[in-house]
Amino acid sequence: MLNVDKQCDTFLYRQVIDLITENMESGTLLPGDRLPSLRKMSRTAGVSIPTVRQAYVELERRRRVESRPQSGFYVRHLAANELVLPTRTTAARPAHLHCRSLMERVYDGINNPDLVPLGIANPSMAKSAAKTLHRAMKRVMARAEERSLGYASTLGEPSLRRQIAYHYLDTVGAQVEPDEICITNGGQEALLLALSSVASAGDVIAVETPTYHGMLELIDSLGMLAVEIETCPEEGVTLEQLERTFKKHPVKVCMFSTTLGNPLGVSLPDEERTRLVKLLEDYDVALVEDDVYGDLRFDGQRPMPVQFLGGKARILTCGSFSKTAASGYRIGWVVAGERIDEIARRKRAFSCSSGYLQQLTLADFLASGDYNRHLKSLRPVLKRNSERMQALVAEHFPSETRTSRPAGGSVLWLELPKMVDAEKLFDAAMAAGISIAPGHIFSPCACYLNFIRLSFGHPWTEKTEEAIKWLGQQVAKLAA
Amino acid sequence: MLNVDKQCDTFLYRQVIDLITENMESGTLLPGDRLPSLRKMSRTAGVSIPTVRQAYVELERRRRVESRPQSGFYVRHLAANELVLPTRTTAARPAHLHCRSLMERVYDGINNPDLVPLGIANPSMAKSAAKTLHRAMKRVMARAEERSLGYASTLGEPSLRRQIAYHYLDTVGAQVEPDEICITNGGQEALLLALSSVASAGDVIAVETPTYHGMLELIDSLGMLAVEIETCPEEGVTLEQLERTFKKHPVKVCMFSTTLGNPLGVSLPDEERTRLVKLLEDYDVALVEDDVYGDLRFDGQRPMPVQFLGGKARILTCGSFSKTAASGYRIGWVVAGERIDEIARRKRAFSCSSGYLQQLTLADFLASGDYNRHLKSLRPVLKRNSERMQALVAEHFPSETRTSRPAGGSVLWLELPKMVDAEKLFDAAMAAGISIAPGHIFSPCACYLNFIRLSFGHPWTEKTEEAIKWLGQQVAKLAA
Repeated sequence: MLNVDKQCDTFLYRQVIDLITENMESGTLLPGDRLPSLRKMSRTAGVSIPTVRQAYVELERRRRVESRPQSGFYVRHLAANELVLPTRTTAARPAHLHCRSLMERVYDGINNPDLVPLGIANPSMAKSAAKTLHRAMKRVMARAEERSLGYASTLGEPSLRRQIAYHYLDTVGAQVEPDEICITNGGQEALLLALSSVASAGDVIAVETPTYHGMLELIDSLGMLAVEIETCPEEGVTLEQLERTFKKHPVKVCMFSTTLGNPLGVSLPDEERTRLVKLLEDYDVALVEDDVYGDLRFDGQRPMPVQFLGGKARILTCGSFSKTAASGYRIGWVVAGERIDEIARRKRAFSCSSGYLQQLTLADFLASGDYNRHLKSLRPVLKRNSERMQALVAEHFPSETRTSRPAGGSVLWLELPKMVDAEKLFDAAMAAGISIAPGHIFSPCACYLNFIRLSFGHPWTEKTEEAIKWLGQQVAKLAA
Repeated sequence: MLNVDKQCDTFLYRQVIDLITENMESGTLLPGDRLPSLRKMSRTAGVSIPTVRQAYVELERRRRVESRPQSGFYVRHLAANELVLPTRTTAARPAHLHCRSLMERVYDGINNPDLVPLGIANPSMAKSAAKTLHRAMKRVMARAEERSLGYASTLGEPSLRRQIAYHYLDTVGAQVEPDEICITNGGQEALLLALSSVASAGDVIAVETPTYHGMLELIDSLGMLAVEIETCPEEGVTLEQLERTFKKHPVKVCMFSTTLGNPLGVSLPDEERTRLVKLLEDYDVALVEDDVYGDLRFDGQRPMPVQFLGGKARILTCGSFSKTAASGYRIGWVVAGERIDEIARRKRAFSCSSGYLQQLTLADFLASGDYNRHLKSLRPVLKRNSERMQALVAEHFPSETRTSRPAGGSVLWLELPKMVDAEKLFDAAMAAGISIAPGHIFSPCACYLNFIRLSFGHPWTEKTEEAIKWLGQQVAKLAA
């Protein structure tokens, strides 16, 4: 039954995981079955007992098996639609981006206003702040007149930086100096400035898998390599695998979406955040923390960004108003701590400064309390949309379909039946006037071939419902 | 008298130039004096006659000597204030940026609204388009409402790209496809996208000297090296030296401001543009063409960007509305021709897209004819400010001061008496509430130590006049 290859460039325990997984998938091991004992498996596979234990514990962490006291490990019964991320052994190597042309077609879909927009993660559109923001902008134009057409300073409008610092204080009690903050052209430029200030071409960057495709494109554009770190569908990145990767690869920087990561919509638990800080310190690795969804937990409880738990010198936190209020304003920021001078230098060299009128408008929007009021009304809309989408998927997609349980944000991650090629589904959907995001683009290795990401971040309409139904029927056809 | 060192890493003819220059500066050779004959100089210096001729012709090109038929070369009488760029032999080597901390202090000055703003090149402020632009933006907000808060597409709003293409057709008769244009976060991001798409860390980039400090910071941030190419104060970059540099250094890309270069304010003549295209082809070198001042010639005659004279595959042209209409909008563009896909990929990876509301507003501003009307009223204001500033400098600065003769734009380049340290002048000016740009930052080698750049791109006030007078007195003190 077992066939572990000691020459293979994969951890032995991971090969044990693969073997168990294969047997679960083939139906040899069914829910409720007991796994071979540690001793027996050790003998059969020719690996040590601790190696087998490591494999079983990892499978438990991934919710595929459960341990019963004094009895052993058993294959778990999965709840209906419960998402189980694949356990892959080949992804943990630095890789360049593989699916450029598909990425471009996905953006063609995103950029096409005539499609049903299930392809783009833009929560702010679910409930528009247009009226309030337009009013704020008109106030600014009347007040600042000509000045608002001039350059903002390199770091950005001081009143906006003060409001952002205040927002951190208000929501998580973190002390941030306005002068540690640099305003950027959206969260994407924040990632660019942060990453390029701590790594160079050829460096290895650790990312979550699955992860936001914009990070992968950025890493690739800068000539860097991405190495994937597995995630749990409920807790985000797996620190055990991270540490093993640190030992194996010269990782320079981690680039993690710590809160409501895209596409999974889950957050790193508090105790894991503290462990992450320690790990970064021990291995002298920097962290670019993508926190653009921080304000969008359905329960309104913003987790503490990892930076404020310690290790400011090695952590850069990126935020944005694109996901919460106005994507088109292109206003984000980096909280750069001691690295602020280097960030300012890059900001100047890469784009001088960010839009001044938008900065003044957002400063007004935050100071007036309109931003918090907007968030308060946006979150329940997103929650409601999320529930509706999950219900429709459960109703119209084949029963083997599994979905994430997002705790916020605007996207649902779906595992479709194995034989469904998400790229084919994408092409069919585009032809039918629906944009979706195929799983391929969320990994540098073009894995997740039978996964898709659907967005519920737009006003819910009949068209949304029809599109989901149509997709479900299409998936059933492709699975047949 | 002569002492040419054949081991030195400098062209022999350049050493001859240096020797002649030294003798002119020491007073050994005075205006009206005949230079030694070619034959005599050849014998004395131990170099060939063609080498001496090359030196003399170059000195003539640089307007230091003049040839009289059948008679020889004579030291020229310089007109009052006529700018003569230094002939330096050490600058033509690739170099990293040397004056970071001064650059930061200069930006502190630029970013401080309480100072008299002579430090920043921002022509659009000389006559504000605020009222018309604000009106256009309100129209857009009423029309596009929620859509204007969403993401623009990666390449940018099609109606704005069409207007830009039309503007090229209208002003220079060039055929540009809207789909060859990518909208960027100002001209600086256009330079970033263009340069990073044709060169990598370690590559050698040819720049004009003196050149725009933002280019030098960009080259440095990307880990590239700048090699300086001399310019003529009336014709911009010297193609002879460019070709010699191509032979000597592995130049990957030229980054030139072909029209109204900053700080000199002159443009490459048409016939030189054609020669440049040929040179780039012969040596397989790319060109990043900075054309952000194209619309600001006092005479309204926009020269043809080099890209449209041929060699589209190797030339990327960068434009912007920052210098003409609204710096704070952060809207520029790259005309990328065949390289548009690579530019779009980078744009997405570096900042997703540019501000949507501003793009819609500028599209309206151009389509309505307001942009052209604005340019028509802006140019004479800039011309008038330029003349006023030159007159005040002639009146209040020491008589050895030499100035550029800008044909457009908003900056004057001043050579101060040799003993004046522009950094000291900068510090004194900042303390007195005046921002200026010291010459140091316009070269990667921190040359131009006795040069400054003054901006006349703001509304002319009594404060402007007082600041220029004060600077003149200060220069006189420092020169004493």
